[in-house]
Amino acid sequence: MFNLAMSEEARPLLYAVQKHIQENVAPITEEFYALNEGKEDRWSWHPRQLELLEGAKTKAKESGLWNFFLPDAETGAGLSNLDYAYIASELGKYSLASETLNCSAPDTGNMEVLERVGTPEQKEKWLKPLLNGEIRSAYAMTEPGEASSDAKNISTTAHLENGEWVINGEKYYISGAGDPRCKIMITMVKTSPDAPASKQQSQILVPIDTPGVEIIEGMQVFGEDHAPRGHMHLKFNNVRVPEENMLLGEGRGFEISQVRLGPGRIHHCMRSIGQAEKALELMIKRAGSRTAFGKTILKLGKNLEVISRARIEIDAMRLMVLQAAKAMDVLGNREARVYVSAVKAMVPEKVCLIIDQAIQMHGATGLSHWTPLAGMYANQRHLRFADGPDEVHHMVVGRAEAQKHGAW
Amino acid sequence: MFNLAMSEEARPLLYAVQKHIQENVAPITEEFYALNEGKEDRWSWHPRQLELLEGAKTKAKESGLWNFFLPDAETGAGLSNLDYAYIASELGKYSLASETLNCSAPDTGNMEVLERVGTPEQKEKWLKPLLNGEIRSAYAMTEPGEASSDAKNISTTAHLENGEWVINGEKYYISGAGDPRCKIMITMVKTSPDAPASKQQSQILVPIDTPGVEIIEGMQVFGEDHAPRGHMHLKFNNVRVPEENMLLGEGRGFEISQVRLGPGRIHHCMRSIGQAEKALELMIKRAGSRTAFGKTILKLGKNLEVISRARIEIDAMRLMVLQAAKAMDVLGNREARVYVSAVKAMVPEKVCLIIDQAIQMHGATGLSHWTPLAGMYANQRHLRFADGPDEVHHMVVGRAEAQKHGAW
Amino acid sequence: MFNLAMSEEARPLLYAVQKHIQENVAPITEEFYALNEGKEDRWSWHPRQLELLEGAKTKAKESGLWNFFLPDAETGAGLSNLDYAYIASELGKYSLASETLNCSAPDTGNMEVLERVGTPEQKEKWLKPLLNGEIRSAYAMTEPGEASSDAKNISTTAHLENGEWVINGEKYYISGAGDPRCKIMITMVKTSPDAPASKQQSQILVPIDTPGVEIIEGMQVFGEDHAPRGHMHLKFNNVRVPEENMLLGEGRGFEISQVRLGPGRIHHCMRSIGQAEKALELMIKRAGSRTAFGKTILKLGKNLEVISRARIEIDAMRLMVLQAAKAMDVLGNREARVYVSAVKAMVPEKVCLIIDQAIQMHGATGLSHWTPLAGMYANQRHLRFADGPDEVHHMVVGRAEAQKHGAW
Amino acid sequence: MFNLAMSEEARPLLYAVQKHIQENVAPITEEFYALNEGKEDRWSWHPRQLELLEGAKTKAKESGLWNFFLPDAETGAGLSNLDYAYIASELGKYSLASETLNCSAPDTGNMEVLERVGTPEQKEKWLKPLLNGEIRSAYAMTEPGEASSDAKNISTTAHLENGEWVINGEKYYISGAGDPRCKIMITMVKTSPDAPASKQQSQILVPIDTPGVEIIEGMQVFGEDHAPRGHMHLKFNNVRVPEENMLLGEGRGFEISQVRLGPGRIHHCMRSIGQAEKALELMIKRAGSRTAFGKTILKLGKNLEVISRARIEIDAMRLMVLQAAKAMDVLGNREARVYVSAVKAMVPEKVCLIIDQAIQMHGATGLSHWTPLAGMYANQRHLRFADGPDEVHHMVVGRAEAQKHGAW
Repeated sequence: MFNLAMSEEARPLLYAVQKHIQENVAPITEEFYALNEGKEDRWSWHPRQLELLEGAKTKAKESGLWNFFLPDAETGAGLSNLDYAYIASELGKYSLASETLNCSAPDTGNMEVLERVGTPEQKEKWLKPLLNGEIRSAYAMTEPGEASSDAKNISTTAHLENGEWVINGEKYYISGAGDPRCKIMITMVKTSPDAPASKQQSQILVPIDTPGVEIIEGMQVFGEDHAPRGHMHLKFNNVRVPEENMLLGEGRGFEISQVRLGPGRIHHCMRSIGQAEKALELMIKRAGSRTAFGKTILKLGKNLEVISRARIEIDAMRLMVLQAAKAMDVLGNREARVYVSAVKAMVPEKVCLIIDQAIQMHGATGLSHWTPLAGMYANQRHLRFADGPDEVHHMVVGRAEAQKHGAW
Repeated sequence: MFNLAMSEEARPLLYAVQKHIQENVAPITEEFYALNEGKEDRWSWHPRQLELLEGAKTKAKESGLWNFFLPDAETGAGLSNLDYAYIASELGKYSLASETLNCSAPDTGNMEVLERVGTPEQKEKWLKPLLNGEIRSAYAMTEPGEASSDAKNISTTAHLENGEWVINGEKYYISGAGDPRCKIMITMVKTSPDAPASKQQSQILVPIDTPGVEIIEGMQVFGEDHAPRGHMHLKFNNVRVPEENMLLGEGRGFEISQVRLGPGRIHHCMRSIGQAEKALELMIKRAGSRTAFGKTILKLGKNLEVISRARIEIDAMRLMVLQAAKAMDVLGNREARVYVSAVKAMVPEKVCLIIDQAIQMHGATGLSHWTPLAGMYANQRHLRFADGPDEVHHMVVGRAEAQKHGAW
Repeated sequence: MFNLAMSEEARPLLYAVQKHIQENVAPITEEFYALNEGKEDRWSWHPRQLELLEGAKTKAKESGLWNFFLPDAETGAGLSNLDYAYIASELGKYSLASETLNCSAPDTGNMEVLERVGTPEQKEKWLKPLLNGEIRSAYAMTEPGEASSDAKNISTTAHLENGEWVINGEKYYISGAGDPRCKIMITMVKTSPDAPASKQQSQILVPIDTPGVEIIEGMQVFGEDHAPRGHMHLKFNNVRVPEENMLLGEGRGFEISQVRLGPGRIHHCMRSIGQAEKALELMIKRAGSRTAFGKTILKLGKNLEVISRARIEIDAMRLMVLQAAKAMDVLGNREARVYVSAVKAMVPEKVCLIIDQAIQMHGATGLSHWTPLAGMYANQRHLRFADGPDEVHHMVVGRAEAQKHGAW
Repeated sequence: MFNLAMSEEARPLLYAVQKHIQENVAPITEEFYALNEGKEDRWSWHPRQLELLEGAKTKAKESGLWNFFLPDAETGAGLSNLDYAYIASELGKYSLASETLNCSAPDTGNMEVLERVGTPEQKEKWLKPLLNGEIRSAYAMTEPGEASSDAKNISTTAHLENGEWVINGEKYYISGAGDPRCKIMITMVKTSPDAPASKQQSQILVPIDTPGVEIIEGMQVFGEDHAPRGHMHLKFNNVRVPEENMLLGEGRGFEISQVRLGPGRIHHCMRSIGQAEKALELMIKRAGSRTAFGKTILKLGKNLEVISRARIEIDAMRLMVLQAAKAMDVLGNREARVYVSAVKAMVPEKVCLIIDQAIQMHGATGLSHWTPLAGMYANQRHLRFADGPDEVHHMVVGRAEAQKHGAW
């Protein structure tokens, strides 16, 4: 559990990814985002944006850098979670990088679920084009009317009628569902309201163009809607899908969540650490280059201590994320659950603070569009809710600790 | 110093202001902001917006509710800072309220400066239309190239040439300078680079339509630009204004700052406390109405303690702001400087935390456009830089404390 | 509620107390504590100690400075809680001051209770000698076997038998019960286990020399036992007291607590603020007189900001305590309960932090017997439990806040 | 740098140490400390105490468990710092364990210094009996009159006179110098006041019985003096030692500090983590066994989140300490300096907080002699000064970080 070094076998992949990013991702990033600004329809892609993306994807595929996110799977590169964590921290540095390697959320989680629990027909229809990078997907779980801290709080219902699941309800903050390439949603529904609490939910495949799926609007995060991917607010109005779209089986929704949640959280956290490193770098460069009262800002007041504390916390977070990844490798997702909750509760909160301190050292510029800091803050702040708010993860960790002493 | 009660004489004014808000401000607010959304030119007002505003202004004037911000001035209502603080906290609840009473920043500070140090000609030309609510104004101090924590860091220059001041430099985050009604800017410049540090700066009146004043763009705060008022980025390219536009005299820029800064900071902080009260109310209503794990969120984990701590800190901040206002009344702006810095350092930082906790209790909704919390957070976060970052105010307080014991 | 100024009438008393402290308390303090060190029996007083104390008491009585703690009482000086708060902050500066004026805890609370609810016989027997400063008293509430956060957690029982209350149970941290002059304890017991939760408790007068009262040991606070006053651990082994020793009536123990707790908490908090002021002064003097890296420590790193934050928090706490005292005057103890809990939850925690920062600025000396800081820290840390832990007071404040919005 | 696992070779030693502790240390602990209480002379050992200690030492020696602290040394077991860190965390659980294995501070640091830089004569005279466990030693660095944050602040002087170093000055908090078995002190002195700042100091061997060495008193830490080992306050009054007692050479005192400080700090921090684990365990057991308001305290308010945060921080600290140990193994003491400062700045501060929270969950009992918490807190609080206050270590880390970006 304490050997957190990357494996020798994975190093070539890390280097290849770094090379790919430098050669194929970095050069297209500026143009890609500039194109996103001037479009007439904010909720579509500019053709040239897709061209840039597909070009990079093709190059990645040609180099064999494709779908390696799947740990120990037939279709994947067989990377351990620990090795993948090292690579994820590279991916975190360029926001387009993951997608060019077909390793971006929520597709990764969705593909992993389909790979593990999908039927041959489900795999053929949805996993195959996802693995090929031909379509994208979404994961529809959070609801506006319920406290998401309690995963059992699902009011979207599905019931069987003439061989079809009829779905009604409302979901929001469904990331990626605004993307015109998004074709399929894994949707959490309540199918068995009278079953024991952990057997009431199911996960169903819902093609996004099914009649009755209504996209209401893009939700904002601190004033940003991240179009065209978006964080969509959706309604399901008598949406009908075939009985065979059920994943794994009625009432097994929670079971599936176990499969998906561990790795995704680790990836998020690894990228968060990349963000914290960037914030720390920006704060040092700014504080070292501005002067006030005859000194660089770096030498004023508490600033050097702020920098020291940021460095210490970042290093501690990195080790914790690596150890959680290792725990998943060694103990399996279920047993490693507490490790994963620990980093999910720890990382985004601390990274928010570090970015906030970087903002403070920049003066008002830190809040402006002249630095990426405000956007980074918004993303990390949002992460404190994604996959359950901090409080829920602290509850998992606290309870496990109490149980060690028979106190829960 | 410890009698912080509102004076009996000021109470009728407070009630009149409350009545005015209910009758004339509250009813127009929703329409006003809806009109702001759909406009073709984001950097102008919709004619109906101005009609609404002017209507409310006329009614306020008719009721004698006008310009009462000026403490102990011939032209003002003679309100003490303490009494004004109570009224400011009412104004903070509706964002349009201050302007309908001709009591909004930065006009209040600019009018106070003109009233105290302006020449008869300057008063006739600029103070009069400002007091009448016919034009608006800006205060151009912060610069993008300098650490604003040190007020002596001014690189915008002005030198006399043929009876004119020739101004060159760059300013940013100049709030209100995007408003088409903004006609005049009080601009901080360096006129005497060889004088002692506190005698190098001057403040000059610069009509915004003077040739050479270039508005580059609106700066953002967490992705918002607050058009059409805006937080403008400006360049001064050989801007020429008549010699008599100098305020008070060359090299007396710092002296003028003493006049303006105290009351403005108190007003900001009082409004901040109004924001914190609103955040606390929203968090309680949300936490009391959502359930998870079979209880209202209010009863889960640390939430009730978070609410208690918010209440305690808000009450403490209110008393501190009232005491700072009282100090200005009793000791004068200069002597009360440390009290004012104390609340400027204390309030926005703590209010940010309270709003952040309200966000956390809302789940992702707290970050969305469905609640005002994200916008409130952005405003308060920005306040931690306005009129000097927290660190500078802590320096003022810390030094004064050390001096009491001869340790500075 | 916002006029927190001391009344004109009370000022002469404040000045008289200050004069008394300078003339009669300050001069005896050093000798008093030196005598406490070398004694053979740590749990007794040195005769000279008592002589010093009695001398100062006599002088106070002669000047009419006696028993003025009782608000609005026949026997007291009729001081409001607000005025008393100002005086308490003076008393906080010299640990012997309160006793010389017969205003020290827990006698003040006990006398107030006896004055308000005692029978004529109880007053004659116990209140009179207490008011004369002839004996001292204790308040026996906290129990080692129960979580004291829930005041209903009382396992000490009393039942009537032949006209006597027979008491059995265990109490600890009974401050002052080690003092040989302590003659009477007001003891919280459970008399009616089957009554509704708030009617089960009673308060009974127990002379400390009653057979069956067993003093087991003095409890320590961070290694100190504060002999001979002590924080005693007691057992009640079939202790029998006459039926008429019951206060107010069986099952009315909680009702009595309402009487005593408000003022006592205010006095504690006011003294805490005096402690914080002292810590701040010590930290400035130290940091201003030591040098490292060529500067005074005051000018290094975050230290000046630490000082600024301490000053701000102390001023905020002072205003909050004054307002709570005012609330008791205006609203009565019951209605002011939430104000009092707010300061009890706020003050000792923040004062601990300020003392800890003073320790840090002293280096290891801050932990030693060369400064009073370690002892001050221990006292304030203990206060976070006295009269209920912080958490309970936050619960009171949080609930009251939630109730304003119908959310509890 | 990321393989933090214990080496296979070291595991048998770890198991042997665990066995030794269970068989030889645990059984004598209670008697040992009980004997410490009743002694007539607090500053001596009871003969039976020494008998117990020597018995355990003999058994350890017989099992070959002796002096294994010395990394990569001829005389030691050749343990890496990383492996030693694992063992140190076991030693931290029993306060007598280290000494029974001849691995206790400050002897370990002193022996390491002598082994690395001592002359054959110095080794024969002092290292040999230390390695045999026949005598003990002290390290005299901190001075009462100087800010210890700046290691150059040394006012104790030594000058050569007739082939002898004549030492004058004052030291305090010299741990272990009260132990009657302590025979030798490595003493930091200023020998070359006119040399560059880092060449002014030297380290000299001073036998504690040299005439002129005056032990003034034992310093206290939160009221405890830890007699008979003590934290002594010493004066050097014209103390004369032979010229050859100089270590390494005049003006090389700082150089020697590099040798000693790394490992010692790691060991301290590892033991601190053991203390935090103990505090967490105690807080859970208490909170799980007490009830208030009808629930265990564990289930009330923020308590479970406090436990979760403690677990997360402890795990993060452990990984950071292991990584610092690894850095010393891989990079050497000098290059690993920043890693070591990071954990020294991180660990004791966070452990203090965790112990404080354990105290809070115990109620007043947490401050009493009924739990070890108050003593543990005092020790950890003291550690925040030992080997330099937190602030100095943050300066080291902050500067190193700034240097990476050329900003210092």
